[in-house]
Amino acid sequence: MDMQEKKISGEVIYKGRVVTLVRDKVLCPNGDESFREVVKHNGGACILGVTKDNKIFLERQYRYAYDEVLYELPAGKLEPNEEPLEAAIREFEEETGYKALKMELLGIDYPTCGYSNEKLYLFYTNNFVKTKTNFDPDEVIELELVDLKDVLAMIKEGKIKDGKTINAIMLYLLKNNKISL
Amino acid sequence: MDMQEKKISGEVIYKGRVVTLVRDKVLCPNGDESFREVVKHNGGACILGVTKDNKIFLERQYRYAYDEVLYELPAGKLEPNEEPLEAAIREFEEETGYKALKMELLGIDYPTCGYSNEKLYLFYTNNFVKTKTNFDPDEVIELELVDLKDVLAMIKEGKIKDGKTINAIMLYLLKNNKISL
Repeated sequence: MDMQEKKISGEVIYKGRVVTLVRDKVLCPNGDESFREVVKHNGGACILGVTKDNKIFLERQYRYAYDEVLYELPAGKLEPNEEPLEAAIREFEEETGYKALKMELLGIDYPTCGYSNEKLYLFYTNNFVKTKTNFDPDEVIELELVDLKDVLAMIKEGKIKDGKTINAIMLYLLKNNKISL
Repeated sequence: MDMQEKKISGEVIYKGRVVTLVRDKVLCPNGDESFREVVKHNGGACILGVTKDNKIFLERQYRYAYDEVLYELPAGKLEPNEEPLEAAIREFEEETGYKALKMELLGIDYPTCGYSNEKLYLFYTNNFVKTKTNFDPDEVIELELVDLKDVLAMIKEGKIKDGKTINAIMLYLLKNNKISL
């Protein structure tokens, strides 16, 4: 079945610091014309860092859009034309104070299929050396090391709600054969 | 530590069909002023429907923002002031042709902590009766029933990338003690 919608024309509504909003006129497979609002986002990298004793680097960070303090894995936006791996290594070191010597891509999270093109590259590392943190000026982040089993309990109880964090841990568990039906 | 940012003033940049974009001036905990772009979204409901023989209702749907056909659980936007449970029952019936007699909230997914207030209410049902589908006029959806073990393989291999779908399945596995470290 042909499902694709083809762009006829588009307008940029707003070009901002984090997001750009566009509104496109599209041709649907059934021949109708419609409009699609798309939030353009440069994407991000998110890192599951696991220590030798099976603890996870978790952050507590206030998020204005939700007006809540959320638990999240370390993460950050990609710079224009930046490779996801490069961003992952940079953000992990800035926010945890450890430089990863090796990172593995777990997968790519599509968080917002209805209205944004944001892709989140989910990485894993268990190989890092101590350097120092270097937070962005407007970041207020508290770092914690939490046992993987406690992280799972926090997800189950709804204390961890952040999508990319749950997605990265799911991929890690699947790739390490920790899920059996 | 005080992490909250307080709104000083705000402007609505765009009020659309799916999203509204606002730009707020905020006071940061360190006393600095900054701006936050927020995509306001009414939220959605997403439903993990499991049949008696452990198959999952999965949809293939073209998503313009990503220009890809994605595998997703049935889902839809909340109407203004609509209860998530009501939306879940409606969307599940519209898209699968089965009316749920009982639904259970698995948890709430925060997909976009950096720039949107969207919350996705993740439901589970294994109790439903055949009625009929009723797609929205601009929806082109192919429905499949897929074994849970195959769904897990698809997540592991990156064939399922949709965040809410992976999050809902993770919560289902955790609540049914299918994950052991």
